[in-house]
Amino acid sequence: MRTRAAVAVEAGKPLEIMDVELDGPRAGEVLVEVKATGLCHTDEFTRSGADPEGIFPAILGHEGAGVVVEVGPGVTSLAVGDHVIPLYTPECRECEYCLNPKTNLCQKVRATQGQGLLPDGTTRFSMLDGTPIHHYMGCSTFANHTVVPEIALAKIRPDAPFDKVCYIGCGVTTGIGAVINTAKAEIGCRGVVFGLGGIGLNVIQGLRLAGADQIVGVDLNDDKAEMARRFGMTDFVNPSKVDGDLVAHLVALTGGGADYTFDATGNVGVMRTALECAHKGWGESIIIGVAPAGAEIATRPFQLVTGRVWKGTAFGGARGRTDVPRIVDWYMDGKIEIDPMITHKLTLDEINHGFDLMHEGKSIRAVVEF
Amino acid sequence: MRTRAAVAVEAGKPLEIMDVELDGPRAGEVLVEVKATGLCHTDEFTRSGADPEGIFPAILGHEGAGVVVEVGPGVTSLAVGDHVIPLYTPECRECEYCLNPKTNLCQKVRATQGQGLLPDGTTRFSMLDGTPIHHYMGCSTFANHTVVPEIALAKIRPDAPFDKVCYIGCGVTTGIGAVINTAKAEIGCRGVVFGLGGIGLNVIQGLRLAGADQIVGVDLNDDKAEMARRFGMTDFVNPSKVDGDLVAHLVALTGGGADYTFDATGNVGVMRTALECAHKGWGESIIIGVAPAGAEIATRPFQLVTGRVWKGTAFGGARGRTDVPRIVDWYMDGKIEIDPMITHKLTLDEINHGFDLMHEGKSIRAVVEF
Ligand SMILES: [Zn+2]
Ligand SMILES: [Zn+2]
Ligand SMILES: [Zn+2]
Ligand SMILES: [Zn+2]
Repeated sequence: MRTRAAVAVEAGKPLEIMDVELDGPRAGEVLVEVKATGLCHTDEFTRSGADPEGIFPAILGHEGAGVVVEVGPGVTSLAVGDHVIPLYTPECRECEYCLNPKTNLCQKVRATQGQGLLPDGTTRFSMLDGTPIHHYMGCSTFANHTVVPEIALAKIRPDAPFDKVCYIGCGVTTGIGAVINTAKAEIGCRGVVFGLGGIGLNVIQGLRLAGADQIVGVDLNDDKAEMARRFGMTDFVNPSKVDGDLVAHLVALTGGGADYTFDATGNVGVMRTALECAHKGWGESIIIGVAPAGAEIATRPFQLVTGRVWKGTAFGGARGRTDVPRIVDWYMDGKIEIDPMITHKLTLDEINHGFDLMHEGKSIRAVVEF
Repeated sequence: MRTRAAVAVEAGKPLEIMDVELDGPRAGEVLVEVKATGLCHTDEFTRSGADPEGIFPAILGHEGAGVVVEVGPGVTSLAVGDHVIPLYTPECRECEYCLNPKTNLCQKVRATQGQGLLPDGTTRFSMLDGTPIHHYMGCSTFANHTVVPEIALAKIRPDAPFDKVCYIGCGVTTGIGAVINTAKAEIGCRGVVFGLGGIGLNVIQGLRLAGADQIVGVDLNDDKAEMARRFGMTDFVNPSKVDGDLVAHLVALTGGGADYTFDATGNVGVMRTALECAHKGWGESIIIGVAPAGAEIATRPFQLVTGRVWKGTAFGGARGRTDVPRIVDWYMDGKIEIDPMITHKLTLDEINHGFDLMHEGKSIRAVVEF
């Protein structure tokens, strides 16, 4: 079939909107009509050429929501008409990782996914001249139709709006999951969140959902404070306005250090600050942000020997097929908010403008609706 | 009263054996006749002058066992004749830390202990000319008698031999506790232990006690392997004899990485290796060794984002008054071994020879008996 897509033809170039060929789903695969997709910094990381592992040409996009159009042989958990969210971290429920309750990093299709291929080692997308187009993060939601492995689709309720819940495919789950799955934050805890972009806001609402007593937001931009307060932030700190040591300031503000701290900046210096303002004896610091290639975190081992714990999280520690439908329910039940974070709506033809908005810091999330 | 002690008169000098004055126990304090004490690298760290926080003159020693001779006013949990092990990490059971199940770092007497003083801000020891002598780690077991806060004494069974269980006051509990309390290692896990000195051997027997399936020991000295095998090591790796990357070698040896890794070397480069050979998705690395002042650990944050956890431990995460008596029971019941680790017995007059043995790598533990 033919479908319309935004294709990353070459590193550093704007996406090109074009008709592409899409082969039907093979065994264990599902054809999805994408109804909406968010634009994420990770897409831009690859599009811009900054990602050393970027592969071109490719159809980017990994924050989608849509409807099942066709299922390939052997697909049993999904049927035509089901509403779904594609998962860049799949959940096969049978690999060594899926069977270990300590991790969500299903390895079933990892090797091919990293090469921009479906599990059988081929692509379904091609240009009209026959040139194969790579998949991206197993999702490729910057296309009106895409083919995804069955194990990489979360089935969600049919009344959830695509243009909001598509964000659960990445930032919402990453932020809330970091609190709930990775930190396992308890009622009454104190948290510090570094970076008040989309991920940071979702960490904040995750802490609110978990019943935190204090939620400190840290950002160099005062303009971020208002939205963060709306999502539950109780204290705002702008490091550029702190006299003296930021760690000491945050330790004092949290009565001895935070129970949980989160880096949503990707800056390795901030990651160190986040660790060191965690409470002696039991504070845990969770790295969410993606650092530049080759960057390293550092601290004195004394910080760990005196009880702090350094962790990281990917996709918020969530098992997508199990957890994403629950998070959709939380949204529909009003336990979490997404609407204020969807700041811009675009058509596919306007997608490159979405990256401009991201660079200008004007959007939290721009969403393309098909 | 007068008692006999080995006094660290000055940084870098041999200890001087002399009679000292010891005041009786004040409120909440206990006078203990020390029956045996181990010599630890931490004592040597201070004696040598390497410890920037070392205070002199002082009576070092923190691995003791003895008998209660007199109790001060208000002491309720101990009586004359009780057998005890002094605790450099006390357990008051009422501070914010003791009441938090995630930590063992009781802060009740921390400030004064760090200054070489008892909780009332004074010392009980003095030279015969009246010069005060500082306490050390709240224990000062290099003296035939010492005064210790009640909350820093574990009451143990009377049939346990002093010259063996004194080692439970430090290395045994640190190593076994790192496995049981900090890692919470499960039956069937795989562990890697870096450094096969006294702490490393105790980590190994902790892993054996916890039911580990594979226990890899790593040391540059082949001679350490025999004793480590006796304590449960299943595989030995000498990094100087590994072709290529040590991390890759250890990951392959453990079938994808270890569930738990332990640094018992204090070398920050080894700490990095320990983290990076932990299993993707769930491996935890625990720092036990004390690094040189100012040394920093480093890694790429990707190591944490893909599921590894970096932790540290002090006194094996043990709450001394609660856990030390249980470990004494384990020793008496034959669940753990200590005897082969006590390689040398000395008199107090021979104590400086014990540090020579330590430097020559000839002892695992030298114990002074009074
Ligand atoms: Zn994303
Ligand atoms: Zn799996
Ligand atoms: Zn020691
Ligand atoms: Zn306490």
